[in-house]
Amino acid sequence: MRAGRRNCMKHLTFFLVATFLVAVVALIVAARGHADDEPAPFVTEMPHGYRDFRWISSAHEAGKLNSLGALPGNDVAIKAYREGKLPFPDGTILAALHYRYVPSDENNKIFGQVQSFVPGAPTNIQLMVKDSRKYAATGGWGFGNFGADGKPGDAASMKTCFPCHEKAKATDLVFTRYAP
Amino acid sequence: MRAGRRNCMKHLTFFLVATFLVAVVALIVAARGHADDEPAPFVTEMPHGYRDFRWISSAHEAGKLNSLGALPGNDVAIKAYREGKLPFPDGTILAALHYRYVPSDENNKIFGQVQSFVPGAPTNIQLMVKDSRKYAATGGWGFGNFGADGKPGDAASMKTCFPCHEKAKATDLVFTRYAP
Repeated sequence: MRAGRRNCMKHLTFFLVATFLVAVVALIVAARGHADDEPAPFVTEMPHGYRDFRWISSAHEAGKLNSLGALPGNDVAIKAYREGKLPFPDGTILAALHYRYVPSDENNKIFGQVQSFVPGAPTNIQLMVKDSRKYAATGGWGFGNFGADGKPGDAASMKTCFPCHEKAKATDLVFTRYAP
Repeated sequence: MRAGRRNCMKHLTFFLVATFLVAVVALIVAARGHADDEPAPFVTEMPHGYRDFRWISSAHEAGKLNSLGALPGNDVAIKAYREGKLPFPDGTILAALHYRYVPSDENNKIFGQVQSFVPGAPTNIQLMVKDSRKYAATGGWGFGNFGADGKPGDAASMKTCFPCHEKAKATDLVFTRYAP
């Protein structure tokens, strides 16, 4: 009886320690925002009201991208830019609205030459959402890429965002400068 | 005495009628917003908060202008664009923030080619302010042009705005389309 009880206690202790360890590991993984064998999380939902964000800058990407776009940001982003605050605080949302870069026939008729290039059909919307806990694995930024149909990119296609943006470490992974 | 009185009355009547006519003419001129021999009025003060206006579109003007810009508008403008409302209502303010169109050395280093063009030094800010009374002589729009130093253009340089914008009569003298 006694040996049986001791054995039982041993098993119970082992069970309790094991449960505790599993719980600790689970907490650590949860705090990091993702399990080690899972891909880093990215943005899968369009932030509300992004088309009302204020303008940070514009950009023309020539060549294969052939895009003309606007880079607006939410209030947290605009405040951080204007105050020159780095790193960007949690809650920052940066958007890049991309369109085909097309000549404006209307404008060019008036100018009398091909001079004016404007946004054509929308191509995609890219996002950077700052949440230093949720997106700890990608520098505190959640990256997002939504097609013209509003559908988010898949995990595989999102793998290239962070390694490229990481090259802009000096400006908290952000390429865009605020246009005065 | 009697003839003198009659003469006096005649003069008084003439004086009253003349004063009345002058007042009527003055009112008509005031209603039109400017005297016939004065140049049409234009915008000489920057509207408050224009850098917080929401984004309507971007544009690249190649050639001599060599500019990259953003076209933001105030709340009245954004509402009218989204509702497809023409003509634009009084109170509409449209801005065009122009910058030199320059390659981004930072971005191009990362892309490995000259591909990325961004706003460089600010060049000028142009405005269209809708006030159908004040700017009746120029289609209800007051045009404005402010240099990088914030100084407004002079009357002579503003004479070219209206004749060119008048070519966009179908869209209430506005070239810019709302980017979705």
